[in-house]
Parts: sequence; structure tokens; C-alpha cells
Amino acid sequence: MSSTITAVDHIGVAVERIDDVLPFYEKALGLNLEEIKESKVNKVRGAILSAGRTRIELIEPLGKEGPLSNFLRKKGQGIHHIAFVVSDLEMMLKRLKKDGIALIDEKPRIGIKGAKIAFLHPKATGNVLIELCEEQR
Amino acid sequence: MSSTITAVDHIGVAVERIDDVLPFYEKALGLNLEEIKESKVNKVRGAILSAGRTRIELIEPLGKEGPLSNFLRKKGQGIHHIAFVVSDLEMMLKRLKKDGIALIDEKPRIGIKGAKIAFLHPKATGNVLIELCEEQR
Repeated sequence: MSSTITAVDHIGVAVERIDDVLPFYEKALGLNLEEIKESKVNKVRGAILSAGRTRIELIEPLGKEGPLSNFLRKKGQGIHHIAFVVSDLEMMLKRLKKDGIALIDEKPRIGIKGAKIAFLHPKATGNVLIELCEEQR
Repeated sequence: MSSTITAVDHIGVAVERIDDVLPFYEKALGLNLEEIKESKVNKVRGAILSAGRTRIELIEPLGKEGPLSNFLRKKGQGIHHIAFVVSDLEMMLKRLKKDGIALIDEKPRIGIKGAKIAFLHPKATGNVLIELCEEQR
């Protein structure tokens, strides 16, 4: 038995201000706005839109510190990360670690939507920031 | 009646060499490799992996010219574009144009998998390169 990836949960898009970009995704593309949420712990505000099973998360930094602010300063707005759904996050992290894959989070933590999540290090992935999130039942 | 987005078809990841990055996606993450394809017209080679309904496309430039080579020179490896499935691409492009959204392709063209596709201009989208592809029946 191993943990498998069953879907792309969401794609995170780093934006300076949600209000400037949301009209394109909601009105022009016609994606359904599910909610706008803040996570003080992760220092982000996120607008969550659905495109079928997969969501687009427009994420805006809360304050001027934290990884998202740094990303925007260095790279500007754009796609920030891909999040895959995994059936068992702890098992997956253990296996990846054993395989020598560099992890940002060795243990699951709680993401903006309340799910267990963990990030892998981009040096292992072809410079893609990958989030794994455990399926919520 | 309007054209709606029903899913994220794929996420394009720009890589220097597919062979260097594929083992992570195929072996470590456990995504299923569907095929490796070349498109001389689009000057890319792509490894297509599935993560549920959504695919990850690792795209490598064929030759040293073309938009993908330019992207790699400027930004290095990383997430390149998001592709949404739309029910009627021509109708969607007409509406977006009417709404003042900047398009790279005003008419559909044929992508690496044989579907009708078109790209929107990143200036309209919060600096995200967005591809729309018509559902294949």
C-alpha cells in the first residue's frame, strides 16, 4: 500500500492585490468564486475559485514579511505553486524523504482551508513549488 | 448560451531536459506517464503525466529558438502555463475580445495533443500565461 496522487487540488497564483485580478478570473473566465479567506498563521489572504475539481487560489500577502511577499518582490505576480491531493500525506512524506527528495515541511501542517499540507523543495522538482494536501473526508 | 470552463486540462512546466526531471514526477510522485510527444510546429517536446483529470506537461524546447527557449533563458525552469478546458473555444475567444481581454491567439490553433487551443496574454491575467483548450469529443 502506498499513498497516491488523485488530483490537482489547486494552483496558487501570487498577486499584489486580489481585487485587481479577481474580476478577470471571476467575470471574464467565468470561474465560480467559492470564498475569500485569511490565514494569519500563513500570512496570506486567498480568493478561491473553482474550475471543475481543481481550484485557482489567488493569494495576496498579509503584511510585508513572509515567503509570499519575498516571492512577489523577487519574481512579481504569477503562478506560485501546484497543490496535489494525496491519500495519506504522512506516508507520502516519509517515502519521499527516504527517496532523497528535499522537503520544506517534513511533517504536515494546517493550510488555509484547514487541510493537512506540506511543501516540497523546488530543487527536487525542476524548480516548481509543489504542495501536497491530504484528501479531506 | 456561453462557453464555460469545466476543468484544468493541464499545467505546463518548462524544463531544460525532460530526462532530468521526469524521474521525480513519474517515480517519486507516482504520476502516470501517458506519452512523450514532439510538436515540430510548436517547437516543443512534451512528457504528459496524469494526476486525475488534470495532466502535468513537462515541456522541453526543440532547438534554441521559439517562446519556450526564450522563457527558459529569461526565467529558468518552472511552471510555464495553466490550460483550462472550455466547451466552445471560438465563442469564448470572441467574448473575451469583446470584454477587452488581451489575446495572444485571436483564432484557435492546433496544440501538441491535436486539440484546438489559444493563449491569452499574461497582462490580462495577473501575469499568468493561460491556455484555453477545447474539449475533445
